[in-house]
Amino acid sequence: MKIKAGIIGGAGYTGGETLRLLLNHPQVEVAFVQSRSQAGKPATTTHHDLIGETDLIYSADFNQPVDVLFLCLSHGESKKLLSEHSFAANTRIIDLGNDFRMGDKAGERKFVYGLPEFQRDKIKQAKNIANPGCFATTIQLGLLPLAQAGLLTEVHTTGITGSTGAGQKLQDTTHFTWRANNISAYKTLTHQHLSEINQTLKELQLAFGGEVNFVPWRGDFTRGIFVTSVVTSALSLDELTKLYKDYYASHPFTHVSDEPVNLKQVVNTNKCLIHLEKIGNKLAVHSITDNLLKGASGQAIQNMNLMLGFDEIEGLRLKGSVF
Amino acid sequence: MKIKAGIIGGAGYTGGETLRLLLNHPQVEVAFVQSRSQAGKPATTTHHDLIGETDLIYSADFNQPVDVLFLCLSHGESKKLLSEHSFAANTRIIDLGNDFRMGDKAGERKFVYGLPEFQRDKIKQAKNIANPGCFATTIQLGLLPLAQAGLLTEVHTTGITGSTGAGQKLQDTTHFTWRANNISAYKTLTHQHLSEINQTLKELQLAFGGEVNFVPWRGDFTRGIFVTSVVTSALSLDELTKLYKDYYASHPFTHVSDEPVNLKQVVNTNKCLIHLEKIGNKLAVHSITDNLLKGASGQAIQNMNLMLGFDEIEGLRLKGSVF
Amino acid sequence: MKIKAGIIGGAGYTGGETLRLLLNHPQVEVAFVQSRSQAGKPATTTHHDLIGETDLIYSADFNQPVDVLFLCLSHGESKKLLSEHSFAANTRIIDLGNDFRMGDKAGERKFVYGLPEFQRDKIKQAKNIANPGCFATTIQLGLLPLAQAGLLTEVHTTGITGSTGAGQKLQDTTHFTWRANNISAYKTLTHQHLSEINQTLKELQLAFGGEVNFVPWRGDFTRGIFVTSVVTSALSLDELTKLYKDYYASHPFTHVSDEPVNLKQVVNTNKCLIHLEKIGNKLAVHSITDNLLKGASGQAIQNMNLMLGFDEIEGLRLKGSVF
Amino acid sequence: MKIKAGIIGGAGYTGGETLRLLLNHPQVEVAFVQSRSQAGKPATTTHHDLIGETDLIYSADFNQPVDVLFLCLSHGESKKLLSEHSFAANTRIIDLGNDFRMGDKAGERKFVYGLPEFQRDKIKQAKNIANPGCFATTIQLGLLPLAQAGLLTEVHTTGITGSTGAGQKLQDTTHFTWRANNISAYKTLTHQHLSEINQTLKELQLAFGGEVNFVPWRGDFTRGIFVTSVVTSALSLDELTKLYKDYYASHPFTHVSDEPVNLKQVVNTNKCLIHLEKIGNKLAVHSITDNLLKGASGQAIQNMNLMLGFDEIEGLRLKGSVF
Repeated sequence: MKIKAGIIGGAGYTGGETLRLLLNHPQVEVAFVQSRSQAGKPATTTHHDLIGETDLIYSADFNQPVDVLFLCLSHGESKKLLSEHSFAANTRIIDLGNDFRMGDKAGERKFVYGLPEFQRDKIKQAKNIANPGCFATTIQLGLLPLAQAGLLTEVHTTGITGSTGAGQKLQDTTHFTWRANNISAYKTLTHQHLSEINQTLKELQLAFGGEVNFVPWRGDFTRGIFVTSVVTSALSLDELTKLYKDYYASHPFTHVSDEPVNLKQVVNTNKCLIHLEKIGNKLAVHSITDNLLKGASGQAIQNMNLMLGFDEIEGLRLKGSVF
Repeated sequence: MKIKAGIIGGAGYTGGETLRLLLNHPQVEVAFVQSRSQAGKPATTTHHDLIGETDLIYSADFNQPVDVLFLCLSHGESKKLLSEHSFAANTRIIDLGNDFRMGDKAGERKFVYGLPEFQRDKIKQAKNIANPGCFATTIQLGLLPLAQAGLLTEVHTTGITGSTGAGQKLQDTTHFTWRANNISAYKTLTHQHLSEINQTLKELQLAFGGEVNFVPWRGDFTRGIFVTSVVTSALSLDELTKLYKDYYASHPFTHVSDEPVNLKQVVNTNKCLIHLEKIGNKLAVHSITDNLLKGASGQAIQNMNLMLGFDEIEGLRLKGSVF
Repeated sequence: MKIKAGIIGGAGYTGGETLRLLLNHPQVEVAFVQSRSQAGKPATTTHHDLIGETDLIYSADFNQPVDVLFLCLSHGESKKLLSEHSFAANTRIIDLGNDFRMGDKAGERKFVYGLPEFQRDKIKQAKNIANPGCFATTIQLGLLPLAQAGLLTEVHTTGITGSTGAGQKLQDTTHFTWRANNISAYKTLTHQHLSEINQTLKELQLAFGGEVNFVPWRGDFTRGIFVTSVVTSALSLDELTKLYKDYYASHPFTHVSDEPVNLKQVVNTNKCLIHLEKIGNKLAVHSITDNLLKGASGQAIQNMNLMLGFDEIEGLRLKGSVF
Repeated sequence: MKIKAGIIGGAGYTGGETLRLLLNHPQVEVAFVQSRSQAGKPATTTHHDLIGETDLIYSADFNQPVDVLFLCLSHGESKKLLSEHSFAANTRIIDLGNDFRMGDKAGERKFVYGLPEFQRDKIKQAKNIANPGCFATTIQLGLLPLAQAGLLTEVHTTGITGSTGAGQKLQDTTHFTWRANNISAYKTLTHQHLSEINQTLKELQLAFGGEVNFVPWRGDFTRGIFVTSVVTSALSLDELTKLYKDYYASHPFTHVSDEPVNLKQVVNTNKCLIHLEKIGNKLAVHSITDNLLKGASGQAIQNMNLMLGFDEIEGLRLKGSVF
């Protein structure tokens, strides 16, 4: 028997992506997709690609019982929602926003930070998940093995993100005429994901000073994040490669590539690929994800799978777009 | 028990796309992927996105028995291959090239033109399939209902294709510096797909004079085909819409959209979307596909499903890339 | 001594492009750049690329005397402006909108349709110019020689335009996430430029029935228009080539290319390139322009040059961006 | 009277860009454009955008006397050429390759490193110029004021470049299908431009240890370089801004922007824009150029202007493409 899932905030990018994944998930039935702005309209009104795949109508409310609830809301709105509405105690909640990533509770609900490569066992036992940010996921996956080994030094990271990271709201920096063939920087050294990154790194390596110097760039593409982090390391490339491969050996979506990586290897998949280079005493770690999948909705499904005891990759064998 | 499939010419774009689909097809086991140029190397050498998904090694030969064989070769090479090698009589062959689309035989093997929306029943009975061309598929799907109703007049079609249509060979027109943000025309009114288009249209409408004036353009994107065909019609938009919706009612991948369509609705899916507009006595039919899927490998899998009695959409519930 | 120019509506795309051209025009001094929304702010506030080139401040008014006035306003606003304000009789006005292209007057001011390849001599004598639309320019330049020779038959045209054609207003179809790698159709067979196109063609060829079937597409690039028009013709390619080359021999910006053309040959220039192909009894005419230059501001400067007796190409020797 | 210029290696990207600039330079006549591969063919054969602008034919040789000679050759070929051919002593030579940037001589010819913002006076006296690399220019312009003030500390730089930086040769990383919407890293921490960067920085700040950690990325656009460099600094943002503005006050192409910068502000211009941000004790310097202009051919013309006593910006008042 299939479990029942609900999506709140289904008309946005992560809501749509979560819906696409759930529609093809063999263990899940979508009970409702809620959207305040689109209530009463077909889901295909906003997600035009779903024509022929679903007749779901956006609902205004969301109080029918479900086994798992995905919150795909703007930052701040999840906390507000959970303070105003209560859901059955056995309903698992996965919040794709950033309201609960730093350990905040919603009443009795305690949220576990949902990065499986960091704490899969805790996620399996969790009732509520704070799904990590997209940059936070990509950067952490590039640094976890070092932190666990206590080898992390000051980090210099540059990351570039696709336009879907900025959501579907119309704004100057997502105007096609401006963004096409353009590159720009934003939130230099102050990106909000630094908090959750440092929280994880310090948990693994108590003495880590939290010096992640992160320069985010806006890219002229729609999907994906490419990150390069540079740290100082005394280990050889072979030692580092072994460290990373051992760390990720049991994780189905994160792979260490011996060959250089390029962003489109992971676009439209739930994968993270990592490539290491050692030059002198510097280690460069390249890590890539699809910001809407491993960086958002895909990881949310992965967390659902873990919480509900499904195969971790169920519903996530995605054909990449590759080109 | 799974059936066994083999791919010949697995290192190219359609070979790779066929492999990606077969790896996730629940009824199929990939017995071999052959590549002359890559024999002995992992499939991930050329299809970098498959890291973590398969350990397949390109084979040099292909003589182990399979239930279905996909030929993903350059034009002319399928005919050559079948003249030099023989395969078990019960091995179904699906040729993705253009060698057998006009009724040519390979020895005893007779090829059925594999456009399910045109002749699904024949395909179900077929042993050998000539998979249609990408432009041919997209243009035909926009015209089939008219031809079947005997309503086709002279057609003026413009179509634009992504760069994957030109294959992975390096050439001036696929140099990034040239093609980015560029548009150009090629094979004006002489595209090789006109033969198979006219063959189908004349079979449906005997009196059709074959006047499909087709202007192909190269687009500055990688995946997809957008086509607009203009014909003269005395029918109203309502009548035409009914004609099209009736025609495609039983076909799972081709849908008539009441709303205007945009190319990314179908990218990384096996769908074709159609939108009709009537202005004065002119009917404009917009039709869109992903050239590598409904225009090549996806349709090949669809044909395999039909021939082998699987659900037509098995292995083709693909998450579109959408953005 | 330099002449004085003013721009009304300087903060938009065509206003900015006109400003860029005038700043480098050796015969012109920019007296003012007016913008209602940006009054008091530097022109570099909206045209960020002009940093280091100009200290101009947007003005709220525009009543200082100038020799030539460029109206870069939304459609309908030029007519409104000229009904509310009067300008010195010897001030030449060039309207880049579509308010006066069909022969409308503004009080005593009669507007001449500003397509130099159609009626350069009339432009030289004009006091007021209605600058043609971008699609209108590109399509007409592909058809003028045929019309002048009385050879025009029913025309089937498809054209694709960059996003700058849609202006700088934020809208769904200019959202980067939507438009990147996407193609869509709009205003099928009903584009507003058809009126001015037919007006010109009928003036040249009285008997022309006005059957220009024009399918406009939105492209996933920012600058440029690529058009292919198909007509029936009994002439040979050589005869047609001679007809076109003779027609354009004295025109410095429009060239007939013996080689196939690609859009980037003209991007960031004031050129129009034309390429002819003859297949059977069909003639295909490919014509390309930069929609903001030959299709708007560049042609406006060209018209200014003609009216004021400057060299037609003054200020328009632009380095194309090419790549 | 105009001076005479020759181009050797005119068929490539920098050769073409140099030609485009010289054709519009009011003080220069192009005496010849040499190309071994294209000798005898019109320059428009390879530079299609120049149709209507020039009738120049590629020459096989280059021994007619010129005032200035531009070498637009692959790395290593300039040295070879100058060892095999001799040019008149009063012919100034500007080498756009990397053969002479580290102080090498060609016979009696001594080459001055042609970064005007670093040593304009030396360039004015020079007979031979080694034109800087594109990344080298962009990174140095972001660091020169710090180095001159002796304030440079270890530098962490990430830079992204357009595809024209890779030249016009067909290769896997410039295939459109691969590069579109893709990001990748190359030559991590080992880029060949580090030598010339460190040479300059050490000349300005003797004690600088040469620790520029540079991560280059390939971008999915054709023109431009965006660089962010992070250093430690005790100065305030105001102090740093003053330092940079003072340094560049007399330089016509390099500007310090108080607002964040985006790549397209400089595309198709000879400008470099710089934006500073201070967070804690870290200074982030963003610097942007067009790799083919300020990063190659534009700077070459700027150097020619300086050597020959022309206005530094002559022929370089370029209309940016902006969009």
